[in-house]
Amino acid sequence: MVDLVVVGSIALDSVKTPFGDVKDVLGGAATYSSVAASIFCKPGIVGVVGADFPREHIDFLKKRNIVTEGLEISEGKTFRWGGYYEYDMNQAHTTNTELNVLSTFKPKVPKSYLGTKYLFLANIDPVLQLDVLSQFKKTKFVALDTMNFWISTKKKELMDVVAKVNLLLINDAEARQLMGTTNLVKAARGLLKCGPDAVIIKKGEHGALLFTDGICFSAPGYPLEDVKDPTGAGDSFAGGLMGYLASTDDTSVQNMKKGVVYGSAIASYDTEDFSLNKLKKITRADVNDRYKAFERLVEF
Amino acid sequence: MVDLVVVGSIALDSVKTPFGDVKDVLGGAATYSSVAASIFCKPGIVGVVGADFPREHIDFLKKRNIVTEGLEISEGKTFRWGGYYEYDMNQAHTTNTELNVLSTFKPKVPKSYLGTKYLFLANIDPVLQLDVLSQFKKTKFVALDTMNFWISTKKKELMDVVAKVNLLLINDAEARQLMGTTNLVKAARGLLKCGPDAVIIKKGEHGALLFTDGICFSAPGYPLEDVKDPTGAGDSFAGGLMGYLASTDDTSVQNMKKGVVYGSAIASYDTEDFSLNKLKKITRADVNDRYKAFERLVEF
Repeated sequence: MVDLVVVGSIALDSVKTPFGDVKDVLGGAATYSSVAASIFCKPGIVGVVGADFPREHIDFLKKRNIVTEGLEISEGKTFRWGGYYEYDMNQAHTTNTELNVLSTFKPKVPKSYLGTKYLFLANIDPVLQLDVLSQFKKTKFVALDTMNFWISTKKKELMDVVAKVNLLLINDAEARQLMGTTNLVKAARGLLKCGPDAVIIKKGEHGALLFTDGICFSAPGYPLEDVKDPTGAGDSFAGGLMGYLASTDDTSVQNMKKGVVYGSAIASYDTEDFSLNKLKKITRADVNDRYKAFERLVEF
Repeated sequence: MVDLVVVGSIALDSVKTPFGDVKDVLGGAATYSSVAASIFCKPGIVGVVGADFPREHIDFLKKRNIVTEGLEISEGKTFRWGGYYEYDMNQAHTTNTELNVLSTFKPKVPKSYLGTKYLFLANIDPVLQLDVLSQFKKTKFVALDTMNFWISTKKKELMDVVAKVNLLLINDAEARQLMGTTNLVKAARGLLKCGPDAVIIKKGEHGALLFTDGICFSAPGYPLEDVKDPTGAGDSFAGGLMGYLASTDDTSVQNMKKGVVYGSAIASYDTEDFSLNKLKKITRADVNDRYKAFERLVEF
């Protein structure tokens, strides 16, 4: 039995930032988010890798109490993403995307996952997200993340998923693109009308905004002097939030706010090193320390 | 006797935003900041206007309990600024600047202002800011604002003023430009080393960061659905903060945080209408209401 199911990409990333570069390192939305969630609960992953995927990465996931029964190992090569960041690290520039095994992936949710109440549809083709969601009979809380690529190429399918989830996570530029307005409050209110009970707008270094029908909550970005690689920050944020909600089994607005801050804490750690290097090191105590730092940061 | 002296530009602005346009309306850094400060205390203004400056604007300042003894009315035309905002209203685009009477302005601080403990050097040529500062024998707390134009053209003079003030206010792009780093925390820490006890980085819709040697405080932007014209938001923010500090005569870090939130509250009102139209209407009770809304916005 798992506490939270995470479906999304599992990748080998090649990333260049002003502070270094790495080649074919562990990455992917499902990877970052399940590792972040594992700080709070026992996640089960749904995804696919190729025969070239290093065994050590699977061993690492298992060591983190992540169930890999839904991790398919296919003939062929693992999905690869290559990108770089300039000094303004809010913006990722994609240099190459090799879908590889992801292009023919048909997600099969293991039976042992199907009673799970919490589901996170991390960034992946909305058709696959919908497919996974349809395999669950009864969920309590489903969250969805996406990216500009799907807004541009599969907007209809994406909006079909949006209509069915409890929480939509989206970054500021994507929210503006999707709703055709530069005003983030208008964009969020518009997105709430599309179905979700809650919308979170991720603003990178500027933090995140949580909207429900009744409230708006603003979480700051954590002021970091040394950001090495922002890859996976959004996924770590979402995974941390969902892991916290699943571990407390409390989806009240008040608890979602706390989850947003826990997610922000983990995301801030993520950016301090390449790949999952920092996430591999941090403990629940570290996350609690940073949560307290967030409390001090906004106290007036 | 005044509580706070404000020196800076007084302007007739012509502004176009996606929500309308106005011509030769009341504007200028000293105008916005003294009107914002007047919600908390009795400010005295130092500035210059031309013979063409509508009498009604001076009457309005006086009605707001702003002392205009230091407001010089010169032969010639009032300083004019023209600009526009596109849908992304974080960025002002200047179309024309006519210095007019500002080009030969020699500020003379009235004797009745000289015992004032609080001084705000709002945006104007740093040579004039230094000149005004040198006329004061004994101040308790001096704040400084500036803009990219002075960073590009009078950096040395600007850094001379920076070295002499207690608080520097600067927007994010200017902080990056001045310190040659995209990282705002590094920029702020670098600026603290240049002299001020505190640095505030203004981030427009993303709020503001207050840095001292010991702390970092993050104030959110207020989530507004209808922003009509952001002109003067930074000046209103600074004026509100300085007015609050002067009225409480408390420059502790804790009180500065409260001042930052009061400043943010007034700045958010400012953007809801063109020129000072909204600032003319709001009362201390309105500001208190929005201060409470900021408390709710960050509570978790």
